[in-house]
This record gives sequence, C-alpha cells and structure tokens, in this order.
Amino acid sequence: MNIIDASEVLIEQVLEQSHDAFFTYRSTTPSQRKQLLSTIAKLIEEARVELVAVAAKETHLPETRLNNELNRTIFQLESYGAACLKGYWMEASIDHDESAQPAKPTIRKLLIPLGPVVVFGSSNFPFAYSTAGGDTASALAAGCTVVIKAHPAHPETSSRMASCIAEAVALCGLPAGVFQHVFGTSHQVGKWLVQHPHTAAVGFTGSFTGGKQLVDWAAARHQPIPVFAEMGSLNPVFILPEKLNREYAQIANQLVGSYTLGVGQFCTKPGVIIGIESPAWTFLLNELSALTSQVKSAPLLHEGIAASYKKNCEEVLLQPGVRVLAQGNSSTNPGDGNAMMIHVSADDWLSNKYLQAENFGPFTIAVQCKNAEQLIAIAKQIEGQLTGTIYGTEEELADYALLISWIETRCGRLIFNGVPTGVEVCKSMQHGGPFPATSDARFGAVGEDAIRRFLRPLAYQNWPDSLLPAALQEKNPLTIPRFVNGKIHY
Amino acid sequence: MNIIDASEVLIEQVLEQSHDAFFTYRSTTPSQRKQLLSTIAKLIEEARVELVAVAAKETHLPETRLNNELNRTIFQLESYGAACLKGYWMEASIDHDESAQPAKPTIRKLLIPLGPVVVFGSSNFPFAYSTAGGDTASALAAGCTVVIKAHPAHPETSSRMASCIAEAVALCGLPAGVFQHVFGTSHQVGKWLVQHPHTAAVGFTGSFTGGKQLVDWAAARHQPIPVFAEMGSLNPVFILPEKLNREYAQIANQLVGSYTLGVGQFCTKPGVIIGIESPAWTFLLNELSALTSQVKSAPLLHEGIAASYKKNCEEVLLQPGVRVLAQGNSSTNPGDGNAMMIHVSADDWLSNKYLQAENFGPFTIAVQCKNAEQLIAIAKQIEGQLTGTIYGTEEELADYALLISWIETRCGRLIFNGVPTGVEVCKSMQHGGPFPATSDARFGAVGEDAIRRFLRPLAYQNWPDSLLPAALQEKNPLTIPRFVNGKIHY
Repeated sequence: MNIIDASEVLIEQVLEQSHDAFFTYRSTTPSQRKQLLSTIAKLIEEARVELVAVAAKETHLPETRLNNELNRTIFQLESYGAACLKGYWMEASIDHDESAQPAKPTIRKLLIPLGPVVVFGSSNFPFAYSTAGGDTASALAAGCTVVIKAHPAHPETSSRMASCIAEAVALCGLPAGVFQHVFGTSHQVGKWLVQHPHTAAVGFTGSFTGGKQLVDWAAARHQPIPVFAEMGSLNPVFILPEKLNREYAQIANQLVGSYTLGVGQFCTKPGVIIGIESPAWTFLLNELSALTSQVKSAPLLHEGIAASYKKNCEEVLLQPGVRVLAQGNSSTNPGDGNAMMIHVSADDWLSNKYLQAENFGPFTIAVQCKNAEQLIAIAKQIEGQLTGTIYGTEEELADYALLISWIETRCGRLIFNGVPTGVEVCKSMQHGGPFPATSDARFGAVGEDAIRRFLRPLAYQNWPDSLLPAALQEKNPLTIPRFVNGKIHY
Repeated sequence: MNIIDASEVLIEQVLEQSHDAFFTYRSTTPSQRKQLLSTIAKLIEEARVELVAVAAKETHLPETRLNNELNRTIFQLESYGAACLKGYWMEASIDHDESAQPAKPTIRKLLIPLGPVVVFGSSNFPFAYSTAGGDTASALAAGCTVVIKAHPAHPETSSRMASCIAEAVALCGLPAGVFQHVFGTSHQVGKWLVQHPHTAAVGFTGSFTGGKQLVDWAAARHQPIPVFAEMGSLNPVFILPEKLNREYAQIANQLVGSYTLGVGQFCTKPGVIIGIESPAWTFLLNELSALTSQVKSAPLLHEGIAASYKKNCEEVLLQPGVRVLAQGNSSTNPGDGNAMMIHVSADDWLSNKYLQAENFGPFTIAVQCKNAEQLIAIAKQIEGQLTGTIYGTEEELADYALLISWIETRCGRLIFNGVPTGVEVCKSMQHGGPFPATSDARFGAVGEDAIRRFLRPLAYQNWPDSLLPAALQEKNPLTIPRFVNGKIHY
C-alpha cells in the first residue's frame, strides 16, 4: 500500500476538525456513545473476512489468532459501550446540606472528557491495540474525539479498520471529526500530533524508545498533556523452592508455552525466570531446554522486528556468564523468529543492564540464584513491570512476604501459579505498571477503568438543575450510581 | 528562627528513611491511618494557642482568620481519617466468573500507595495547605510516607506543626520515617527532593514559576513521577447583561468582598471581571470603585510578596488602554497591600499577555466587552483556571450555552451567581483545573478524592484469599463497597 506521510498542514486541519467535533461529541449522551461503539463493532464484524485477510498479509500472524483478536476487539467495543450506560466512570457526586448553618453552596462533580486524543497503535496487536483497539474505544466512551496515526507495519489493515469507524460515525449522525486517521512513518508526524495545541492526551503501545519520545515531546509543550504509553516489560517469574520440587515439569510446560506464544510478541511475555539452585532447578532447566528445542520457528511481525531480534540474540551471547540452554527448531526464512533460552547466574544478571532489557520475540532468560536473598536482590533491582509472577505453595507465599512486598512495588499485576500472558478484559484487570513498563502507573489500558485516563473532574456550584449535565440532575435521569453527601447511592 | 538548608547527605538519609518506613506504613490498616490522622488533629488542637501566635507573627494574618484556618485543617485531617474507613478510594474490584468456559482466572484489583511523597507547602495557607495541610493528610490517608519542605516564609509555624505530627506518629507506634520535615530556602534543596529516586510523587501549592520548575525536574528524572502543583489562577467572572441590569449593586458588593478577602491572597481570588458595555455595566464600575476606595490596606504575607505586588501594580499601569478605576485606603506601611482595580477594553486585554497573568494581592481587572462575541473570545483565549464564575439569570445561562461550553473546557469549578473564594471541603469539590492553574487537571487537592493522587492500581490474579490485602478478601472484612463482576456491592 502506498503511504503518504501527513503534512503539517494536514495535521493542523485534522486537529482543528477534531477540536470542533469535540464540542459536539463531548455533549453526547451515554446511549449515543454506546450506539457508536456498537455500530463500530457491527461494521467490523461485517468486514471480518477482509480485515483478517489483510492483517494476515501485513503481520504474518495466523488467521486463527487474528480471528480471535478480532473477537476480542469487538468484545472490547461492546464492553466500553456497556460501561457508558453503567456510568460508574463518571464518578458523579453531589453535596448539598440544606441544614448547614451558615448556608453552604450545593456542589456537584462529574468527570468530563479531556479533548482530542491521539492514538499510536501497536504492531503486535493489529486489531485489539490499534486503530479500533482499547485506546480508541475507551477515548470514545469518555467523550473524546480520536486521531489515529496508523502503524506503518500494517497500514492497509489500519485504513480498512478506520473506514469501518468513519462509517459508524456517519451512521450515528456524528461529525466526521470524531474519528480521523493519518499516516506517518517519520518521527516528525508523531511530534506534530503530540505537540499540536488541540491535542489533549496521547495513547501509545510500542517500544520504550518510541513511548519515551512521546512522553518527552508532551512534557516539552507549553501545556504539558498526559501520555499513556505502554512500553514493554520483562514480566519476571519467581519460582519458589517447594513448588519447584513438586511441579517443575508442569511449570516448564506452562512457561515455554507462554514465552513462545505468538512468537514471543506479547507485552506480557515472561522474559526472565528466576529460581534458586537445587536439583529441582536443574530438572526445570532440562525440561525448559527439551521443550524449547521442539518449538518451531514462525514469522515475526515484520522485517524490522526480525532483524532486531536476530541482533539481540547474537549480542546477548557476548555477555559475561551467558550460556545457551536451548534453541528452537530453526527455519531458513530470514523473517522467522527462532525460540531461544539462555542461562545466567543472578550475580551476572544483577551486574548487567543489558540482560535487564526486553528482547521482543521468543526469548527468555533463566536466572539462577544462590539463595532467597538473591531473589529479593533481583526484585529490588528490577524496574517497573506490567506483571510479576510467583510460583509457590501458599505456605511459601506467606514465608516470602518480603519478596512479595518488593514485587508488589514493581508491578501492575501479580500472578500466582500461572503465566502472565492472557489479559482478561474485565473491570478488575490492571494492564499497566510502574515506569518504564508504562509512562503512568496510575492508569491501565484494559477494562472499563481505562476510560478514566481521558477524563478530568469538573465541579458545578449552585448550578440550576435543568442546565446541569444529566448525570448530575436531581432526578438522576441516567439512573447511574452517585455519591450524595459523601455516601454512594444506587 | 535560624534555618539551615538541608544538605544532599541529609536529604539522602531522609528519603532512605521515608522509603524504609513506607514498607511498614503501606501495610497499615485503614483504622490505623484514621488513628494517626485523628491523633495529629488532637495534638494540633492542643497546640492551638501557640500555633496561631507563631503563625500570626510569621504571616501577618489576623488571629481570627488563623483560628478559622486551623479549624479547617483539623476538619480536613478528620475527614481524611473518616474517608480511610469508608474506603471508596480503594476502588476494590473482584472479577470471578466460576461458570466461564474455558475457565477464567480470578482477578482482584485495589489502589495501592505510590511511595514517599514530598510536599511543598504554600505561603498563603500556613495551616490548611502547608505542613499538616491537605497534601500531607491525603498522602497519609493513601498509605504514603511524607517529607515536608518547610515554607521559608513561616519556618517556625512549620516546625511546630511538624512536631505535632511527629509526636502523633510516635504515639501511634509508627516509624519516625512516616513523616519528616526539612528546611530549604535554595532551589537546590527542592531539586534534590524531587529528583531523589525514592520520591514517588510531589505536592506543591505556590507560584507558576515554582510549580513549573518542579514539574520540569520531575519530567527530567530517569523515572518521571507525578507532580500535583497548584500554580495560581485568574478565576474569571463573566457577568451576563440581564443579571447585571437587575443586581449590579449586589454583584459589586460580592466581588469587592471576594477579591480583597485575605488581602487578595487566595488562589481563588477573582482576578478578572468581564461584562458587556451598557448603562448597567457603568453602574457596576461605579459601585466597584466606590467599594474599592473604602477597602483598608493590610499587611501582605511577607516582604517579597509586598514588593512584587507593588511592582506589578506599577507595571500594569504602563500597559496600553489601562486606567485605574479605584484604589483602596492606603497606609504608609511598606509591607501592606493596597486594593487596586483597573479597567481595560476586551480588545486591549485580548492582545496583551501581561494582563492575563495573576497579580497576587488585592487587585482585579474589569474588562469591558463590546458584545457577546467578545465574551466568547475571552473564554476561548483564557488559559486553564481553578474556577470560572457566571452571573446570569437562568434564561441567560441557557442562551449563552456556547460561552458556558468554552468556560467548562477551561476550569475545574464553575460557579453560578456567587464568588469563587470559599472552597468547601467535601467529596464533590474539585480544587484543581487545566494547566497552568494546576499541573494535572485530572486530580484535585481538596476533599477525599485528593487521596486518589497518591495511588495506583494493582491486580492480583488467582491469589490465595488469606494472603490478599484485607480489602480484597472474599469476606470483605473491611466492609467497604466493592465492585464484583463489574457491579457495585455494598
């Protein structure tokens, strides 16, 4: 597909239109927003065959996986639509104390949308975290307009998806500026988008380098704006001794399945596996090696990722103390990713920043500790993560309270006896974590609480009832839960 | 009082101790945090006479006002204590669908404290927004430890307040690192505090220059951290024609009382009053002048503020189109602030950035518009504000929907037929607003939602019930409201 980078003039027009449309779209009712999200879902479903075929061609991902990802994308859109009606995210609150002496004003508060949101989609989820993905859906639910910068690795998928959304916007009688789609392969396009005065927030899923650049551009604006960048994660897995003794074979099986899933291209891939040296640890390494050597190589998302994966796998072997545990069943296709597992001592891992960075692809590191203190030393040194996983018995979890406490301060999601891949879409999910996993650990990118990213509170003091937003009117016409004088009412 | 700036070595020790204490304090129960906040309130009450005397000497504020502010400070501490027990702010959420095929993990989510919080108190509220003020109280409620940098304009007040807090921490059997107090008159101390790796968040109330500097230091860290800086506001007041016709005298009375309250040293002082030229507007100006000329001058907080107020009042007269409407009843005391009101046309105001910046003290500008379009032009051009006020009839509010819409996008609180000074402490209050009024419009500094600033979500997947935080355990031992499978349960 022939991509033409957006010019500065075009971006000016796009943001101007987004800002104009925001003044209409911010006042839509929750039902109207739900209708828009459902219409997008319906049109995507109708375009399924074509969308999957185009995405398969552009991303090399298998059609089964892409169909599942499209299901998830549609589910997300419907979930955010349902959340619009439930209205928890509005955090409507009313304080009126008629008996107060001296008299107090009536204060009502509501979360309102920030303004136009610029979304940079991911390469590894062409549907669920791209053009019609979680960032777009949650921003539209919040009442924000959206400008997408298409990912250069799947421009045609992005274009076709954008057509579905634009058609849904038109069908719902909303201005075209509610959703717009631009191309940009150069950094300059990203900079113009982030630094345009009308841009109110940014969503991003990708590399640390890319995300941090957006954060820095946003901070350098006259008016700094929030950037929600998900930037990668090691997703450490800590295996406690007794559990290891009892279940090393099952653990090995789960971990190899998880780190090679989708050719290791998930943000929640376990990139480091940590245990204490023991006979069971050796058995685990043997199992991990045997299973890794059976993994068939498969195409990575695009040539850039394949080249950098290959380079990283070569460079890591030059690091002190590194030895290869196993490699997968290699192919001759230069675009393929071949599974690779290495082994290193905790001392070597702790003293080498290179080993503490994500290697995107079917790669993981087994880190061998001498004792429990080294487990804690790793938990202390590790930077912010999307997830942290503990394999242990319940008794061990209690015994290792200090280790858990450190891991809690480093992660957005803690997993007990399971793998970090697989992110449920539900209200309780937190997909986010301390820097550098994301740029803002206070928010998440999955589930209805992701809407909160694109909102801010506005209080109305002594405002006439009939002119208040419906969410705050005395009779509660939206029938949403609200706080009244500090207590929840439903 | 003899102030010695903290050294880098001392700050290293302080933050190390704060971080150590955080690992204890983060695990305290809501009752323990409530107990701490109540004990602080009790000790402050016991020290009232001394605290008020010291603060009066250091800030030149009258004792009546200081006693009222101390009441508010105590009320805030008790409110945050009560909020600890209510537990809304934890946003506890559980998703477990036992009937799901294939089986789904159980996910539970809770907001957890960020870590050590550094608080820079304000000069204008030596009690309510300083050492034991809203930032400290909400951070302690969240489970964060606190390091205060004493405001150089009231070091002795700050020290005595800090003693009350430290004594309360000890009485509650908590580590001394939960609350610490340092001095710093140099910028370097602020930079060390903000850039220390253990610092997890910053609270600030003061000038734009000071706040923006902290924001920039925080953004330049290896790991950027949130800064909640409240940095001043013009608090525009828009007066619609029919209301003006009917009530110009009452409006003038309210506005002069508001802009000169506390010698104009409130962050919510109405700094610009906007109306459309008409006979009633002329009557309003006459009333404002008459009332302003009767205002007695009074001491400003400190010499620095007095000098810069005097300089601003001289410079503003050099701006094109500016004429003095009235000045207050001046004294010969060089530390006093004399009320001053100027008049300018909307054209002159719109074309002059100097007039659009806050002048801290008993000063305001009347801006005369030719028509309704100029009201909108001002609302469009104005930067982010803590508050926006509309005087109008209900019919006018409906007629001026576009103006209101613009003001909504610029403010954190909208006031109808009242003055912006006077900030109720309640859940529905929003004290915050778009940049540059604050550095993060998504949060506020007053009311229990201020706790949310110092928290982030953590999800637990398949975690054993007995090892979960109490807020997430199956039997809900804290009896807090929680979301279960996406619906609220109480």
